[in-house]
Amino acid sequence: MGTLSALFAPERVAVVGATERPGSVGRALVENLQSGFEGDIVPVNPNYETVCGLPCVGGVGEAGADLAVVAVPASAAVDVVREAGEAGIENVVVVTAGFGETGGEGAARERELEAVADEYDLHLVGPNCLGVIGTAVGLNATFAPRSAPPGSISFLSQSGAFVTAVLDWAADHGVGFENVVSLGNKAVLDESDFVASWGDDERTDVVVGYLESIEDGRRFVDVAREVTRETPVVVVKSGRTEAGAQAASSHTGAMAGRDRAYAAGLREAGVLRADTVQDLFDAARVLAGQPIPDTDGVAVVTNAGGPGVMATDAVGDGPLSLADFGSATVDGLRDRLPDGANVYNPVDVIGDADNDRLRDAVNVVLGDDAVGGAVVIAAPTATLDFTQLATDVADLQSRHGLPVTTCLMGGEHARRAEDTLEVAGIPNYFDPARAVESLATLERYRSVRDRTRHEPTTYDVDREAAAAVLGRARDRGATRLGVEATPLLDAYGIPTPDGAVVDSPVDARDVAERLGDPVVMKVVSPDILHKSDIGGVKVGVTHEDVEDAYEDLIARARNYQPDATILGVQVQAQVDVESGVETIVGTNRDPQFGPLVLFGLGGIFVEVMEDTAVRLAPVAEAEARAMTDEIRASPLLSGARGGDPVDREAIAETIGRLSQLVTDFPEILELDVNPLVVRPDGVEAVDLRLTIEPES
Amino acid sequence: MGTLSALFAPERVAVVGATERPGSVGRALVENLQSGFEGDIVPVNPNYETVCGLPCVGGVGEAGADLAVVAVPASAAVDVVREAGEAGIENVVVVTAGFGETGGEGAARERELEAVADEYDLHLVGPNCLGVIGTAVGLNATFAPRSAPPGSISFLSQSGAFVTAVLDWAADHGVGFENVVSLGNKAVLDESDFVASWGDDERTDVVVGYLESIEDGRRFVDVAREVTRETPVVVVKSGRTEAGAQAASSHTGAMAGRDRAYAAGLREAGVLRADTVQDLFDAARVLAGQPIPDTDGVAVVTNAGGPGVMATDAVGDGPLSLADFGSATVDGLRDRLPDGANVYNPVDVIGDADNDRLRDAVNVVLGDDAVGGAVVIAAPTATLDFTQLATDVADLQSRHGLPVTTCLMGGEHARRAEDTLEVAGIPNYFDPARAVESLATLERYRSVRDRTRHEPTTYDVDREAAAAVLGRARDRGATRLGVEATPLLDAYGIPTPDGAVVDSPVDARDVAERLGDPVVMKVVSPDILHKSDIGGVKVGVTHEDVEDAYEDLIARARNYQPDATILGVQVQAQVDVESGVETIVGTNRDPQFGPLVLFGLGGIFVEVMEDTAVRLAPVAEAEARAMTDEIRASPLLSGARGGDPVDREAIAETIGRLSQLVTDFPEILELDVNPLVVRPDGVEAVDLRLTIEPES
Repeated sequence: MGTLSALFAPERVAVVGATERPGSVGRALVENLQSGFEGDIVPVNPNYETVCGLPCVGGVGEAGADLAVVAVPASAAVDVVREAGEAGIENVVVVTAGFGETGGEGAARERELEAVADEYDLHLVGPNCLGVIGTAVGLNATFAPRSAPPGSISFLSQSGAFVTAVLDWAADHGVGFENVVSLGNKAVLDESDFVASWGDDERTDVVVGYLESIEDGRRFVDVAREVTRETPVVVVKSGRTEAGAQAASSHTGAMAGRDRAYAAGLREAGVLRADTVQDLFDAARVLAGQPIPDTDGVAVVTNAGGPGVMATDAVGDGPLSLADFGSATVDGLRDRLPDGANVYNPVDVIGDADNDRLRDAVNVVLGDDAVGGAVVIAAPTATLDFTQLATDVADLQSRHGLPVTTCLMGGEHARRAEDTLEVAGIPNYFDPARAVESLATLERYRSVRDRTRHEPTTYDVDREAAAAVLGRARDRGATRLGVEATPLLDAYGIPTPDGAVVDSPVDARDVAERLGDPVVMKVVSPDILHKSDIGGVKVGVTHEDVEDAYEDLIARARNYQPDATILGVQVQAQVDVESGVETIVGTNRDPQFGPLVLFGLGGIFVEVMEDTAVRLAPVAEAEARAMTDEIRASPLLSGARGGDPVDREAIAETIGRLSQLVTDFPEILELDVNPLVVRPDGVEAVDLRLTIEPES
Repeated sequence: MGTLSALFAPERVAVVGATERPGSVGRALVENLQSGFEGDIVPVNPNYETVCGLPCVGGVGEAGADLAVVAVPASAAVDVVREAGEAGIENVVVVTAGFGETGGEGAARERELEAVADEYDLHLVGPNCLGVIGTAVGLNATFAPRSAPPGSISFLSQSGAFVTAVLDWAADHGVGFENVVSLGNKAVLDESDFVASWGDDERTDVVVGYLESIEDGRRFVDVAREVTRETPVVVVKSGRTEAGAQAASSHTGAMAGRDRAYAAGLREAGVLRADTVQDLFDAARVLAGQPIPDTDGVAVVTNAGGPGVMATDAVGDGPLSLADFGSATVDGLRDRLPDGANVYNPVDVIGDADNDRLRDAVNVVLGDDAVGGAVVIAAPTATLDFTQLATDVADLQSRHGLPVTTCLMGGEHARRAEDTLEVAGIPNYFDPARAVESLATLERYRSVRDRTRHEPTTYDVDREAAAAVLGRARDRGATRLGVEATPLLDAYGIPTPDGAVVDSPVDARDVAERLGDPVVMKVVSPDILHKSDIGGVKVGVTHEDVEDAYEDLIARARNYQPDATILGVQVQAQVDVESGVETIVGTNRDPQFGPLVLFGLGGIFVEVMEDTAVRLAPVAEAEARAMTDEIRASPLLSGARGGDPVDREAIAETIGRLSQLVTDFPEILELDVNPLVVRPDGVEAVDLRLTIEPES
């Protein structure tokens, strides 16, 4: 899929299903195009000579267009698209509803549409969408009542109604767009295509999206992690909560996916996630209007103490920090500010400040190397003119080239000043916390932009040996494996306690004598999941007792389930679990994002406290190390309770190797190493459990 | 302190320091009063005949006023206030700055002011404040550039600038006020006084506050927990973060207090806490405009799927739940809505809905018993008139008497409709999440209003015995106590392992023989805090070894610190810690809120995971039970890891008894029981440590 710029900047647009019927989609499309499109508009309708004063053609094949907007009934839409393809029109927007979203016949029709698009290699938007907007050429190929003001934000939405709403709202709020697309059912083009295309678009400074699902999570991640090197991407992914996910899936028929996987995927993609519409457009505005800071230090300058405290609280809530001013800054402020002012951060120029004093203070702090950006706060006073302040702040922002947001705390007073700030791309809020949060968004994007995009570490493993273990299990029809799959871990270089699965008391004794006392013995049976519950695990067994223990374990298993498949007994060196920290490395497979890896501390930390770090597999070792830092219980790995710090490198390597294993073998649906005992000098995978897909 | 209503509704106001000098506070005060005050205004200034056309008097004593606003220089202010007091003026607002906030001389002046206010029993606001507003009589006794529009919100603020800002903003946003007070330095009247007074004020529906500190935390809690039975109180308490607290204390000189104590105090007070200005006024508006729901079930009605999903996510984020409609509702919706609409919650009337269809749907859901309130969402469409929709929603809200918030998603379209909604007190937002959050605020207040206000449980204890333990410790000058203070727990009925502190090997053996093997022995010395580190603790000692162990412990202590005070050795029955769950009950004393009690699971849960519940002491037993539910690790107390559920009643009782102990003895600064071992059949306080204040 090449760039989609032609879709948003056509020269000649055919409107198939154009009509003059009042209130119709066909008419709205023509009128919206007429309202500003720089190119040609060709209504297509065999029943009209002209539509809205434009000469009509009878079929899309005669239009000579490079974009066809299709608004005919669903039953005719596929044929129209084929005709467009035959006529060499590459870009098609299918506004028509009645496809996948209705199920049954509609779904079949959507598959036909896909096939046609594939045959002619079409850039097809929709079906069941509102259309597209490209402000560079004045294109409003939607049936929305309002178009978009021009700007540098490109916006994709899985909800057409949301596009309508945003367009209505944006014009009043100084928010302008480069491109807008309503994705509809995403039969062909989806979010990944547009993110990729906008990443290459010089005119797009920010990509903003509303998504209820992501079609191909892996592709989205691959695309977005590259795009976000230069262009910020912010999305609301709705269906975050269980109720929301249900509502989303009943609404579009899309599989909403579990939010944990989306969170991991969006993180890996470098996409900033907004929880609400307000957050989404707050983020979009500041990213479009202000430069990215070089450091997380922020200066707060205020003429009122209280709001300064509120701003400082907000700094503490997010990724920014209050900049520690250099002595030149402090001296400079002291020279310019009266007694009683605070020359440290947050700078309080106090209530009797005039415009000059406030401007001077902002100028001084923006000159400090520790300052990456500033929040300027002003309560209305008799001595301060907000309009002048706005002009001063816009000027200083531009001269210093650092991001600034403002909090001009008033109604009428502030509104007049806001126009000036809007032109300068400076977000202004009544709430100090939102002004700070706005700057924090820039800092969040800086972290994403500047992060190292690690390639997954590839380990030297014995893939054939692992394949053999899985093959044997599949041969005997097993889907759930336990300790008998330990050789899988051995093949991938993950340390396990010494031991073996044996099928006679004598072999058991031989193994035990080799290992030395004491040993742990476990019955190995795919039919017995909870071995402990039936007494199927014995710890602290000495070599003299091994043979008796073997017989007893087999007897217990038989007693529990006479027809159970018993693969033998595992005899293992007893691991001193107390001497290390018990952790869990788990993996499972998400329908959108593929294999995920989870890390957490053993037992209650994962199960009760839900204290886990999750990533897409395969995981680079640096990312795996970050997982060990991310959990709240992380200090325990550093010896918080008086123990020695454990070997985090070994944990990271184990996460990396396991993620390589589940990536190499898609038939592994779930795999948990629990516990992975971690010590100062390494790790041991003491137990494992996995689920594999039956051979199909 | 009686009600303060006269302060906000005087008949005759004296402005002391009135002047015509342009830009002066004295002039602004007179002009603001002239702009709408229904009563008499008396400028007081010996140098003028008239001020702003009003006849002047030479001294406040001649004014015959019932409210004096003082704007003379700080050096003269105390005398003016005394004169007012002598003249029988009860209500005084001291606008003048230069008191406590400047330290030194100013602080001394503030103490004088307090003394005068006390002598004449004055209701004194300030000093160093903006003034007061009472819209019922058109009173604007501030020097702010704008007054407040009338309404049912009463607003107190520790920041005068914030008042100015809010007044400027409020007029444009349909927010009206009954009373407004700028607290200034709170020399006499503080937040508790106003909350109490407004709780008695029929015209105040909501109390809103901006606070950087609370003067007397206990009094505030006592007052607010009563007021919030009928009147919601919402505050921003800034200085939440460490940086914010520092900024707050440098700004006002007020002790900001630790946020954990404030959180516990505000919770106990039933005060809703807002983190930001936006949240504060979002909450104020809905509480002033809408009724409180009877149930947490909310209905979402939308003409657009995407925004419906966003709203549903927001429901999942908060205390509301999506109402489960009765069959009559579902049938009613099915009758009225077309195919393709969703008749379950969230109700989607789909994009082609006209006003009638949307109104009918809202009407049906508001008739459902499971519905406590509704969120109505509309994206702009050709078929929907927002202004009509606003009228319909306002009408239905009023007819059903249930709270409704709206999300009319547009700019210009929505603005016209907003006026209608504003009159009806219905908050409207572009963001579905904010419309939901607005309803959630009502639900949060419902929980506060309807909660049982438990009186602390009083236990039968041996207070004299406890006093004796503390007295002996103080007599010997001890400030840190350990196991030797175990009798303190015994006196308060908290189970401890059997044992005694002995001072000879023979006594140790006697005790050990009585207890049975094994015992734990610990050296008891106020000079040795970390007994384990010097080998001062022995576990698993059998009776034959007790005498040797005694000698060894004493020797180790002497070796560690030759001049250490050694009180003896504790011999205690050994507790099988593994058989229970280790918990911690800790207490400490907060400067604002007095004794606090903390509960959490032992070790890492408190120290690393910060998983604790905190309350003000004394704690009612029902509250103490709630603490055991509140911690994230709570499932462990219910046997989440396969154990039996532990005795939560015994934990609650221990929390209650300990909180009674620290309440009874203010000299206990800190007291930690760690671990409190909890089992299915009770608890045991295995170790304790406390800090007491030296006798002064």
